[in-house]
Amino acid sequence: MTEQVLTSWNEGPAKQAVLEYVHGATTPGPAFVEPADRIATFDNDGTLWVEQPLPPQFDFVFRTWEDEVKADPSLAARQPYKALMERDQEFFEGLATQEPKTVATLLEAFARSWAGTTPEEFDARVRQWTQTVRDPRFGVPYVELVYRPMLELFDLLRANEFRVFVCSGGGRDFMRVFAEDTWGILKENVIGSAAAYTYTSGKIVRSRELLGGLDLGPGKPEHIFAHTGRLPAFAGGNADVDIEMLQSAAFALLVRHDDDQREYAYTKGAEASLTMADQLGWTVVSMKNDWATLF
Amino acid sequence: MTEQVLTSWNEGPAKQAVLEYVHGATTPGPAFVEPADRIATFDNDGTLWVEQPLPPQFDFVFRTWEDEVKADPSLAARQPYKALMERDQEFFEGLATQEPKTVATLLEAFARSWAGTTPEEFDARVRQWTQTVRDPRFGVPYVELVYRPMLELFDLLRANEFRVFVCSGGGRDFMRVFAEDTWGILKENVIGSAAAYTYTSGKIVRSRELLGGLDLGPGKPEHIFAHTGRLPAFAGGNADVDIEMLQSAAFALLVRHDDDQREYAYTKGAEASLTMADQLGWTVVSMKNDWATLF
Repeated sequence: MTEQVLTSWNEGPAKQAVLEYVHGATTPGPAFVEPADRIATFDNDGTLWVEQPLPPQFDFVFRTWEDEVKADPSLAARQPYKALMERDQEFFEGLATQEPKTVATLLEAFARSWAGTTPEEFDARVRQWTQTVRDPRFGVPYVELVYRPMLELFDLLRANEFRVFVCSGGGRDFMRVFAEDTWGILKENVIGSAAAYTYTSGKIVRSRELLGGLDLGPGKPEHIFAHTGRLPAFAGGNADVDIEMLQSAAFALLVRHDDDQREYAYTKGAEASLTMADQLGWTVVSMKNDWATLF
Repeated sequence: MTEQVLTSWNEGPAKQAVLEYVHGATTPGPAFVEPADRIATFDNDGTLWVEQPLPPQFDFVFRTWEDEVKADPSLAARQPYKALMERDQEFFEGLATQEPKTVATLLEAFARSWAGTTPEEFDARVRQWTQTVRDPRFGVPYVELVYRPMLELFDLLRANEFRVFVCSGGGRDFMRVFAEDTWGILKENVIGSAAAYTYTSGKIVRSRELLGGLDLGPGKPEHIFAHTGRLPAFAGGNADVDIEMLQSAAFALLVRHDDDQREYAYTKGAEASLTMADQLGWTVVSMKNDWATLF
């Protein structure tokens, strides 16, 4: 098995732990996991793709808001448009820590941008973005900045009858546009923060309200349970907002960003999760040491 | 193909229409449906199992409420406990028509029964019910009153790369307890009305509020879109609360209850859907004529 799977992973404790878990889960014995219970869930930003300097969805949203400010310059005096125009990164980092006022302001702006639109309209905007906008540092579309080792992990898990889900604080409907082509994950296996929809006159239309809260922190196991009826057997994350999801899983994998040559090195927003990984024996993946190829 | 599939279906226009749709959806040509888009959704009560005199979940809930009235007799003066003690069927039929006050009263009682419980506690109660309680007319557990022709239809659809979902106004978590054994459908493919859950101290616990509204009428395509990111290619229902789901699908199948010998004959609650089936060319299944075997 080890020869043909996880080929972009270096030999080492992380790869070994993953292979051992999967072997145990699929082999009669004390670690066996019933096929129905083989749910694997992964965070997206920083776990499946680059999240520095900001998660790519911000780039998408900022372009929309810049268009809105052009159409209505009075918006520039208000948040979050003001922070956007001033490139106030600290303001947006308040989202990761769930600073309530920041979150409320952002959700209101999301609603202003998208309430009343159909999925077709939204999807077309996202597709245009994935096809035309490039990450400034790497010079490629953001969807090409997905970590190849994680896609190989999906393959390994699926080959062993795990169902792979993405569970991100980011927009569910944003991710669903590229999930099938980029991750090989069906839309219905993408869980994330999402607006409610109404069905009127034979059409699905986006509403103003968020349904089920942000998919961050405790929201992750809540969304996963609501969606699947289970908590995960295997979970992967990279940040403090993934802690509850990782805690709820039998096997937890934490990606550590320590490779400033090929990607970024930072622990900001991951301090508590790195400490817990130590305490609880989670498997920590060093991007620098454990991954031979990144993209 | 026709020899080995839908063996409990009589030859006739309904079976023919289903086979033709599936053949078209899977054959290059104008009716081809991309595998990713092959979503099939089915109502439960009256579509997959007997719903007369009341949907089986009521039997489960009534037993819980009877226990609660025994523990606190003062409840008997209030709805819905009063209606239960007086066997006031009309009161409960207000749920199917979404009479707002009835719905609110019932939801409040559901919350009183289950808020604060873990999935394990709830599942154990449902499992005890499926194993011990029998339908008074048929003398078997309710889960044995699933229509065999529909299970064969699931097999046919899955063999043709459709993903089969159940989408019911009934309780999502109630159905998930028996979905895998009874329908061969994974919990994550069960969509229904559901409470919110909170994750606290490492546990998922049921909260008081309903999340995303009742999965009835327009709520069906809304729940389906939220869960899968798509509207169905194939949908099956039997009542007016299924109309929007059937309208949202490329192929719609409506079960007509016209067999009072083997099951029940009634059109109550299905009048509008039967009229629409005529107007829109939906495939109507006569239980009496189209199904050789029922259970």
